Amino acid sequence: MNKDNNKIIAVDAMGGDNAPRAVCLGAAEACRKFDDLSIILTGNAELINLELESVSSEIKKRISVVHAEEVISMDEHPAMAIRKKHKSSLRLAMEMVRSGEAQGCVSAGNTGAIVAGGLLIVGRIKGIDRPALGAYLPTIERPSFMIDVGATVRCKPENLYQFALMGNIYSRKILKVKEPEIKLLSNGTEDIKGDECVLAARELIIKNNNLNFQGYTEGNDIVWGRSDIIVCDGFMGNVALKFGEGIMQGLKSLLSTEVKKSVTAQAGMLLMSGVVKRLWTRFNYEKYGGTPLLGVQGVVIKAHGRSKEPAIVNAIAVARDFIAERGVELISNEL
Amino acid sequence: MNKDNNKIIAVDAMGGDNAPRAVCLGAAEACRKFDDLSIILTGNAELINLELESVSSEIKKRISVVHAEEVISMDEHPAMAIRKKHKSSLRLAMEMVRSGEAQGCVSAGNTGAIVAGGLLIVGRIKGIDRPALGAYLPTIERPSFMIDVGATVRCKPENLYQFALMGNIYSRKILKVKEPEIKLLSNGTEDIKGDECVLAARELIIKNNNLNFQGYTEGNDIVWGRSDIIVCDGFMGNVALKFGEGIMQGLKSLLSTEVKKSVTAQAGMLLMSGVVKRLWTRFNYEKYGGTPLLGVQGVVIKAHGRSKEPAIVNAIAVARDFIAERGVELISNEL
Repeated sequence: MNKDNNKIIAVDAMGGDNAPRAVCLGAAEACRKFDDLSIILTGNAELINLELESVSSEIKKRISVVHAEEVISMDEHPAMAIRKKHKSSLRLAMEMVRSGEAQGCVSAGNTGAIVAGGLLIVGRIKGIDRPALGAYLPTIERPSFMIDVGATVRCKPENLYQFALMGNIYSRKILKVKEPEIKLLSNGTEDIKGDECVLAARELIIKNNNLNFQGYTEGNDIVWGRSDIIVCDGFMGNVALKFGEGIMQGLKSLLSTEVKKSVTAQAGMLLMSGVVKRLWTRFNYEKYGGTPLLGVQGVVIKAHGRSKEPAIVNAIAVARDFIAERGVELISNEL
Repeated sequence: MNKDNNKIIAVDAMGGDNAPRAVCLGAAEACRKFDDLSIILTGNAELINLELESVSSEIKKRISVVHAEEVISMDEHPAMAIRKKHKSSLRLAMEMVRSGEAQGCVSAGNTGAIVAGGLLIVGRIKGIDRPALGAYLPTIERPSFMIDVGATVRCKPENLYQFALMGNIYSRKILKVKEPEIKLLSNGTEDIKGDECVLAARELIIKNNNLNFQGYTEGNDIVWGRSDIIVCDGFMGNVALKFGEGIMQGLKSLLSTEVKKSVTAQAGMLLMSGVVKRLWTRFNYEKYGGTPLLGVQGVVIKAHGRSKEPAIVNAIAVARDFIAERGVELISNEL
């Protein structure tokens, strides 16, 4: 049995482009960083143990391995894979959350399968119709929490309202924002903008009058951080987040090509390396760490598919915070 | 009467954040640049004539002014404003297109009103259910033409199919791309992605089999230019385009703040100014110039609301090309 404050997190060792290495080493690093943490790695035991060879025995005491025969790949049909692959590393990790063996789980695998597993294995919170993935976006004025970035592709007004409610709790309790400002992503800030769904969601939020709601926000506001929470459907959130990532990757690649062409520019780049690094760190849309799947009856954190070791540590840290703050209970109680 | 090749374009002198000055001077500059061009400026005649004082009499011969008593502002309800403001500069310009007095029109004003005017004054092309705004996006590999960036907020599958058809003609005839590759913007590139509407649009395009259709494209592909044409609804296109603009503006602002803090960085910036300028020019999402409103029975070009003189010249040049290539006829004939 775990000590009172000990947190047990199941981690899908096979999920993501850099699995199992980055996941195993990230899990070990997280244990080093947080001494109240135990981790269960699910996946191919042989491969996992190989990756853990370099880890000290002191840390290894807090890592256990549960063998999983199957892996859900990135391009499998999410719901089908979760239903059929009973012995997949992701499903095993989620079953541990359902049974209480683990208090939360983390995966960098197939997003759709994580969402489907959240619904089918972990289960919905009563009162929430559809779950949402929230991501912490880098911005200029203050970080914004965008919800949903890909769990529920298209939404009804009630879904968007529930996303606003869940985002509000997450922002207050986990991100420690007082009275978070909430805005709906729309095609303009004026009241006449929006499609039918966004308009109806706006009216629903205003009618319920229990949130610090500030109306619409538009595309160019995102980067300035004009609100603490940006509510949108999962289709829009997915495209926006990936577009942000793409622009930063594109600029980085072009910058390096251009600089290589000129010795003067290379000298300039040396002098500016601090500034460029700071900008890059600040606007790296991949660095948002773990995105919580909100609306399910357990702590489920999705890490970016391209996660390297630090991003896995970050996602585990998010799961740890969420457990410590009893985030799932808070959402259930507030509904 | 105009000579055979002469093109007459009506320009809404009152539309946009920098009107009437930037519009009037842009119109004069366009006449200097293209000697087959005549321009009719609609708007407050007194203000327009004041702005034209510095223009040479040679150029002024090709500019006429038609007084308009009313202006449609940026935050007015689009359809209502077009219906009620019979004497607005935008409506007058569009009426000239309908009557044939002008062969095309340009406005940097209220986007919604331009779309509404396109539908109500200029009229739809038979066979097109909803119009679309197309924008030429800066990317790394090749420029992409995104359609729709804000005319039709939410779409049916048929609308998206028609956008693909119109984008194809525009890309081939105006942008001179051979067999343009067309992709649908989705929340992932795999066939299982997309919402109901995008999925149905995909099937419709495949069934008709008359386009070089290459499936889905996702957010991070946009910046790399993975297709010649990106088809999406106007809500998504609007948010994506504005987000792109916002990121570039944000980076520019942060870069200048950071550089000011350090003398070393300032020296570096001097050495790198060429590279930074090239990147900025290449990825300036505001510089896409004129966006054509496709699907209406006349040449209607929207310029960015923040357009300065060069952007107005650019938008007029787009209108001129569209007239010369008989773009509207081509779209009508192909349907």
